Amino acid sequence: MNKADIIYGMHPLSEALKSGKSIDKVFIQKGLQQDSTRKLMNDLREADIPYQFVPKVKLDKITRKNHQGVIAYTSPIEYSKLEWLIPAIYESGETPLLLILDHITDVRNFGAICRSAECAGAHAVVIPEKGAAQVNEDAVKTSAGALMRLPVCRVKSLVDSVKFLKQSGLEIVGCHERGKHAFQQKDLKGPLAMILGSEELGISPALQSVCDADIHIPMKGETGSLNVSVAGALLLYEAIRQRNEHIELPQKG
Amino acid sequence: MNKADIIYGMHPLSEALKSGKSIDKVFIQKGLQQDSTRKLMNDLREADIPYQFVPKVKLDKITRKNHQGVIAYTSPIEYSKLEWLIPAIYESGETPLLLILDHITDVRNFGAICRSAECAGAHAVVIPEKGAAQVNEDAVKTSAGALMRLPVCRVKSLVDSVKFLKQSGLEIVGCHERGKHAFQQKDLKGPLAMILGSEELGISPALQSVCDADIHIPMKGETGSLNVSVAGALLLYEAIRQRNEHIELPQKG
Repeated sequence: MNKADIIYGMHPLSEALKSGKSIDKVFIQKGLQQDSTRKLMNDLREADIPYQFVPKVKLDKITRKNHQGVIAYTSPIEYSKLEWLIPAIYESGETPLLLILDHITDVRNFGAICRSAECAGAHAVVIPEKGAAQVNEDAVKTSAGALMRLPVCRVKSLVDSVKFLKQSGLEIVGCHERGKHAFQQKDLKGPLAMILGSEELGISPALQSVCDADIHIPMKGETGSLNVSVAGALLLYEAIRQRNEHIELPQKG
Repeated sequence: MNKADIIYGMHPLSEALKSGKSIDKVFIQKGLQQDSTRKLMNDLREADIPYQFVPKVKLDKITRKNHQGVIAYTSPIEYSKLEWLIPAIYESGETPLLLILDHITDVRNFGAICRSAECAGAHAVVIPEKGAAQVNEDAVKTSAGALMRLPVCRVKSLVDSVKFLKQSGLEIVGCHERGKHAFQQKDLKGPLAMILGSEELGISPALQSVCDADIHIPMKGETGSLNVSVAGALLLYEAIRQRNEHIELPQKG
């Protein structure tokens, strides 16, 4: 984490918010009871920026500077609103193709997924406010810059977002090792959001319960699991293959 | 690189060779003219272990120990012989599916490719003696252990190996951004070795000239290239999809 990515103190953060700077998350010192704290919390809620109360000792570990009880991590990207993005995809005549990332906390994995997603032509990745990798310069670097171009939707609740996506006509397909269909045998041609879980936890039960279908990637050998960015690319390119099946693609050369 | 992975000195290396220990490569001090040096070079050639003459200062940088002009890196894996492997694949009734890695020098990328390859059920990866990533513990770790199970063939000349593979009935398909066919539109059902080049250099002209066909992975967006382990997985799973097209796969659940 580059020091330039951190904002210290109430006033600098207020200024950053006023200027529309993209903030990844905010730590507020536990027990910090001031009018300005309440105003900050309101501002953060309005701007859909996650915040968390932490002990003073945690803030002191992050910096030796005078943080006045408030530390914010800036984000190198602007987030997109799912509610605006989905209609825009339909209006452009395209068939939505999204990835939802459930508890993928590793910054490099997150960046790598975004690289694969942008290359494959996915419309967006959806991440939760809490339990997601930090969207920082390391993520941008691992994404080979793709994160600067690929829409990222950061949402309060993945379950609520999935419900919204279903209402918007998307099929929700979870991918995990016990998924019913092999991914290449499942129809992925329609409006689609596919869910990838973390290698440790998989997809949360609450999210699994709202999926329309689930798939797995067949595994030979004994390693047992692919890197999640590899899995994401396989799913997206299979969806694209199926969609193009009856289209004569121009061949290069 | 763990210090335990390095052998210093002529005598310890001779002992390691005698005991059949797998050696990745050997550095010999320039100008070191002894009978024992000539014997060592013979032994290394016989065992197909690459060696390189380097200035003393390079050896001194690797260790402060008394290296006596010889430093060897051990390999955590045993290499496989392409000449033995291919007949064994045919004899087992399977259709060969290999990846050839041309100038992929990044250890993590190499490990990640091997993870994808083992998961997909590739029979082996082929790497050159020179210009390949070091096969070390970092590679094994990044491969999630797949490197301990996936056959790796280390060959003197990729061009000669490709010629051998062609004689053995394999089609050789290069994958690069100017490849003629989109990978999902190329028949990949037969005995097959696919070549991946490095992100910087691509596939060498000499190797391109002996390919039977070349393919590309279609790119949307502007990132322009996938991580090479992602590319490898896409190619292998597409080959498997095509091979299974008319087979009713058992579905889980």
